[in-house]
Amino acid sequence: MDVKDLFLKDYIGKKVKISGWVKNHRKQKEFGFIDFSDGTTQKHLQVVYDNTLDNFDEIQKISVGSAIEVEGEIRKSPAKGQDFEMGLESITLLGDCPEDYPVQPKRHSDEFLREQAYLRARTNKYGAIFRIRSVAAFAIHKYFQENGYVYFNAPELTASDCEGAGEMFRVTTQDLDSIAKSKKYDSSKELFGKPVGLTVSGQLEAETWAMAYKKTYTFGPTFRAENSNTKFHANEFWMIEPEVAFCDLNGIMDIEEDCLKYIIKYVLDNCPDEINLLDKFVSKGLKEKLENVINSKFVRITHKEVIDILKDAENSGHKWEFKPEYGEDIAKEHETYITEYFKKPVFITDWPKDIKAFYMKLNKDGKTVAAADLELPGIGELMGGSQREEDYEKLSKRMDELHMDKAPYYWYLNLRKYGGCVHSGFGIGFERLLLYITGADNIRDVIPYPRTPGNCEF
Amino acid sequence: MDVKDLFLKDYIGKKVKISGWVKNHRKQKEFGFIDFSDGTTQKHLQVVYDNTLDNFDEIQKISVGSAIEVEGEIRKSPAKGQDFEMGLESITLLGDCPEDYPVQPKRHSDEFLREQAYLRARTNKYGAIFRIRSVAAFAIHKYFQENGYVYFNAPELTASDCEGAGEMFRVTTQDLDSIAKSKKYDSSKELFGKPVGLTVSGQLEAETWAMAYKKTYTFGPTFRAENSNTKFHANEFWMIEPEVAFCDLNGIMDIEEDCLKYIIKYVLDNCPDEINLLDKFVSKGLKEKLENVINSKFVRITHKEVIDILKDAENSGHKWEFKPEYGEDIAKEHETYITEYFKKPVFITDWPKDIKAFYMKLNKDGKTVAAADLELPGIGELMGGSQREEDYEKLSKRMDELHMDKAPYYWYLNLRKYGGCVHSGFGIGFERLLLYITGADNIRDVIPYPRTPGNCEF
Repeated sequence: MDVKDLFLKDYIGKKVKISGWVKNHRKQKEFGFIDFSDGTTQKHLQVVYDNTLDNFDEIQKISVGSAIEVEGEIRKSPAKGQDFEMGLESITLLGDCPEDYPVQPKRHSDEFLREQAYLRARTNKYGAIFRIRSVAAFAIHKYFQENGYVYFNAPELTASDCEGAGEMFRVTTQDLDSIAKSKKYDSSKELFGKPVGLTVSGQLEAETWAMAYKKTYTFGPTFRAENSNTKFHANEFWMIEPEVAFCDLNGIMDIEEDCLKYIIKYVLDNCPDEINLLDKFVSKGLKEKLENVINSKFVRITHKEVIDILKDAENSGHKWEFKPEYGEDIAKEHETYITEYFKKPVFITDWPKDIKAFYMKLNKDGKTVAAADLELPGIGELMGGSQREEDYEKLSKRMDELHMDKAPYYWYLNLRKYGGCVHSGFGIGFERLLLYITGADNIRDVIPYPRTPGNCEF
Repeated sequence: MDVKDLFLKDYIGKKVKISGWVKNHRKQKEFGFIDFSDGTTQKHLQVVYDNTLDNFDEIQKISVGSAIEVEGEIRKSPAKGQDFEMGLESITLLGDCPEDYPVQPKRHSDEFLREQAYLRARTNKYGAIFRIRSVAAFAIHKYFQENGYVYFNAPELTASDCEGAGEMFRVTTQDLDSIAKSKKYDSSKELFGKPVGLTVSGQLEAETWAMAYKKTYTFGPTFRAENSNTKFHANEFWMIEPEVAFCDLNGIMDIEEDCLKYIIKYVLDNCPDEINLLDKFVSKGLKEKLENVINSKFVRITHKEVIDILKDAENSGHKWEFKPEYGEDIAKEHETYITEYFKKPVFITDWPKDIKAFYMKLNKDGKTVAAADLELPGIGELMGGSQREEDYEKLSKRMDELHMDKAPYYWYLNLRKYGGCVHSGFGIGFERLLLYITGADNIRDVIPYPRTPGNCEF
């Protein structure tokens, strides 16, 4: 049985046997308390013993981190903060743990625990963060599956580069030392007969599925080879990329809003202990912040209107480090101002085409595209969506303007020829979402084994 | 609304408006039938129109593959095989489709459709296969999440090689042409400061999560750079790797059996049309085969007992291409014989240690390990599981025997030092499972965009 089961129905008066680990061990002269957990719930079981047990002295030697099997009766607890405890009757030491075990029951720094990443899920904080990661992932699958989306596994290895976004990792089946000795790199010797890299986005391929199933989503790893050492960048991260046929920009914003609220609500409903812990020790006000998102009607405002607001602020004396301009991108300080201005999530729509991707639907003004970025208070951009250009000629022209080689995209263009239609999609960076939901402030702390410049451990 | 909705409740007598695609168009002089689908269900909607409509001549020109919006009343159908149809009242052509559209309503070969992979999900067969892929993926998440497992995202980029299984893809952030010119490959110039590759398995890392959460599973892409051009090998494929603490080999076999039955049952319950189509046109008897698995109690038999049976067969006149021997691996013909012998799934346990991985639990005999391969009638090995060696000294000794460099595995070994315990896990190749469930006979036909030697399209 699992410790979790004890909290799901009444076991008082019943004898149970469970395996797990010693999280803390407080010893008194005549009795002792083992803070016991098997990892199946954030909650611990208090195991109480006294010197009426034959092996009392042996038990007192059991150290923090050890794996044990305990047997005893579940009984009402006189202690504050818990309804029940186990009165220990017998205990077996399954695997001991030396005194130099790094995860002792005290506060460790995030930096220290990153070095001990293979042990950090055993701590209360990271135990909570990574359980929320798991539950949020399931919420995402559940949301899309229950709404009729077909899950699409975009290829990781790819010979094409989606929108040239960031730098790509290159993949080879040749020995790198041999390449160095060969004088000239011969891509025809690769297993695939040509150069390949790791995908930066599955969106273009996902559109092929939207044209077959109407509603599809990806959820898988994507890669950027950027040398960015920030709190928000990792070189390997998971993306969710839904794509919907017969859906325009307003339709996709409805879906984004509904989807985000669903995921947050699912986590609040299914991880109350984890959220409470993070609210208390990691990010004060976390729960209230998340509840506010669920209860907000998201604002929809154009890029031009945003610049109007930012310019008005300037006229009223606000000093900008970067001057807001029509037709140009907005800076982090602008995002912050706008979300604080509305005090709720804001979709900024109709962006200048030159700062957005080639596949976005050109608006009638010929200058802006039907794109929407979702900005959240306290974190900035969380999702980016757009209506896709469904007009073959316009898309082709745009690719020419950007000097793209159209040949490798023949299939993408053909989607506009073979029963093309209005369609839209968006992308969620899973780890960005987790930073928001958990209140953690560094992407390294929401990925089990993060890959960042100089760091590829475990 | 979606076409799927029409089959979920009674719409007869109601007017509806839906967007989708023309799958077939049969024209008569005074009326016509559009075989209409929006991809949300395997079922199509028959749209019937006649020359009382003003634009009858225009409608007759609408070609297969076009995107249309239709509006009309749902009414009882006089035709066989369908309960209702739409009496068309108005139609809008959203996106037309030329006559040379490759996916015409006729039988195409699998080979042809592999070349048109970006269109094949629009066909009945591949529409069914890839919807089953999606539903099976969800079944897997549902099974593990509802049973208290924490989803673990194993890293794709890794500096270590799990059991040296197959060849690894190498990843670089340096320009390959520049490496060729540099004379000597300098791995310190890589983004991570050292050589990295693409993971072949997330198991070892998953064990770290099992020691924190008791129950964990991975579900993500894995890679093998092998130059194997067979129906069963792809260079990129998805693996599920559950790992459970306080669980021995028998326990993990219980979980494997329960899990496989759950997934198959979930697909049968949620994709009846898809399974019926595949049963009829792709693999006769598919449904019965799958139902048999659900209703079987899987056999558990040791490797030695398997050799006994194979040798008995030989003594009774059966000719083997490969002679079965105690202490040696078994061949495909042996797997086939054994599953046909029992006529149900068979776990073969307690394998000779020298043909199995370093991390498997050594049995008391010192010669065999606590491993179990699950063999299925008609496909052979589908899952491989084992109890993991939890004894630090024995594991360390085995790694020495195999001349492994233990330094990069310090964390894996430490799991045995810091509250180690009996634990077990298994692996499922997702595409192998899909071959079994869909009856498709080539792994290229169950992966949206397969990567195989010489093939990295789309």
